[in-house]
Amino acid sequence: MKEIFLLVEVLGVLAFAWSGYIEARRKEMDPVGAFTIAFITAFGGGTIRDVLLEQRPLVWVQHQAYPLMIFALAIVAYGLERHWRDSPMLQKMRSERAIVVPDALGMALFNAGGVALAWQLGNPPFVAIMMGVITSIFGGVLRDVFCNEIPLVFRRGTLYATCAFLGGGIYVVLMWCAVAASTALLACMVVTASFRLLAVKYGWRLP
Amino acid sequence: MKEIFLLVEVLGVLAFAWSGYIEARRKEMDPVGAFTIAFITAFGGGTIRDVLLEQRPLVWVQHQAYPLMIFALAIVAYGLERHWRDSPMLQKMRSERAIVVPDALGMALFNAGGVALAWQLGNPPFVAIMMGVITSIFGGVLRDVFCNEIPLVFRRGTLYATCAFLGGGIYVVLMWCAVAASTALLACMVVTASFRLLAVKYGWRLP
Amino acid sequence: MKEIFLLVEVLGVLAFAWSGYIEARRKEMDPVGAFTIAFITAFGGGTIRDVLLEQRPLVWVQHQAYPLMIFALAIVAYGLERHWRDSPMLQKMRSERAIVVPDALGMALFNAGGVALAWQLGNPPFVAIMMGVITSIFGGVLRDVFCNEIPLVFRRGTLYATCAFLGGGIYVVLMWCAVAASTALLACMVVTASFRLLAVKYGWRLP
Repeated sequence: MKEIFLLVEVLGVLAFAWSGYIEARRKEMDPVGAFTIAFITAFGGGTIRDVLLEQRPLVWVQHQAYPLMIFALAIVAYGLERHWRDSPMLQKMRSERAIVVPDALGMALFNAGGVALAWQLGNPPFVAIMMGVITSIFGGVLRDVFCNEIPLVFRRGTLYATCAFLGGGIYVVLMWCAVAASTALLACMVVTASFRLLAVKYGWRLP
Repeated sequence: MKEIFLLVEVLGVLAFAWSGYIEARRKEMDPVGAFTIAFITAFGGGTIRDVLLEQRPLVWVQHQAYPLMIFALAIVAYGLERHWRDSPMLQKMRSERAIVVPDALGMALFNAGGVALAWQLGNPPFVAIMMGVITSIFGGVLRDVFCNEIPLVFRRGTLYATCAFLGGGIYVVLMWCAVAASTALLACMVVTASFRLLAVKYGWRLP
Repeated sequence: MKEIFLLVEVLGVLAFAWSGYIEARRKEMDPVGAFTIAFITAFGGGTIRDVLLEQRPLVWVQHQAYPLMIFALAIVAYGLERHWRDSPMLQKMRSERAIVVPDALGMALFNAGGVALAWQLGNPPFVAIMMGVITSIFGGVLRDVFCNEIPLVFRRGTLYATCAFLGGGIYVVLMWCAVAASTALLACMVVTASFRLLAVKYGWRLP
């Protein structure tokens, strides 16, 4: 079980980082910029949550494997891009569809982690739900702010933050019903991810 | 007395949140974006101050009534807007003049709260004044940054940050003169709010 | 020795603040905006580092001489600008070349300070290097974000963050070799500053 969580975390971090890398390159940033934006996209949300809740050490400060992984991703992708700019595989990976599934899984994990941490620290339920949403969306929000764009998650049609919100709501309701914490965590993840994937598939959006 | 402070705080939070909501909707954000921007506008300044001074818990983390209030504001306003987009009352509330008075009151209260907190924690006078200004203007600054605009408070003609600065100066001078803390707090609020209202009325601006 | 460090620190703070002031004025901000952007450019990077590493008090909170210095800089520069807008000296100071040397020195000092602090707190080497880079570049990054621009350091040809990165690498390697901490600190500064100056002189840039 623990290995699956770790696998989902790595997948999610890579999916977030990759979306940051693509956006930075779209803005013609150099490798330093691309790495920084990729890093902020992956860890910005969790870092803001930990600063707000005064949790230390930060995940990426404790485990330098994460920043090193994103550093390697940026270097390798930049190298590939220079030599095979027109390769169909890179073109395909640049499209948004390529990261929908890992992004949804990562987002669901980040959301569940945020809401569970805030809840365990004794925060009020609505605040706990907000902390989950912050964890899952603020990496992307910072990515867009640093790339001088209005945050996509505040504009985009297909539901994103709303899925995190609903997943967090499920967690809180289950904890109120005195369900085991691990069950509530899993339910939160499953609801968030599947709701997100359905929203993409059927084009659900807010009115 | 305490009830009056609470009333001013609620009014101020609503005025700040409303200015965030309007700006977000001007950028055609969806309800998630509108709520987030409204929330950041209302609590961004105080949150930055508390992070800088390491004060916890944050006001909105301790009292979930505030985020819930802003959530309700965003939902209700969004609903009204969809059904009565052209109603004269909404048009009027969208104009900047509608929130000048509650905004000035809220700003004065946030400023006084910031400078008093920093002073009581033993910070140097200029830093205390800066903390008041940060509390009162950085919500709006973050609102504009997230909406991809140059912060209004750094551009706008009529004095805003300067009023907070002067009010904070009054507080510091009075505390030096060993006036009672509650008197200094009140003087700071009165000076800040009336200076702001006069600046709007007579169009005062920096050279 | 200590006096030299202090002198470099003051020079660096002034160079960073000046670059913020120029950018803010280019965007036609008023004196409040110009002071705020100058201040954020000078102390933004160090403040983010201290928030991430939970170090308090912040340098500028403990020593109000720094914010007062930047306040004086903004007021004086604004006054001069209004009366001698076309003076050749101001024109010259507005050009980027005027601050290359103090900026490089300040950047090297901030970088060394950041990496040494993070190292002494027991952070992993790659994280320590990142903290140095954050200290030296995030002031400028925030300046550009608040001025509604894509951060220059992520776009600009001549190497900047890369110099900080290399300097930090030298520090870590020397500390691993059990060299005295002061020697490693000095080596980090010298490498960072000279690499930066050479990059400007010969127009080095990433591929």
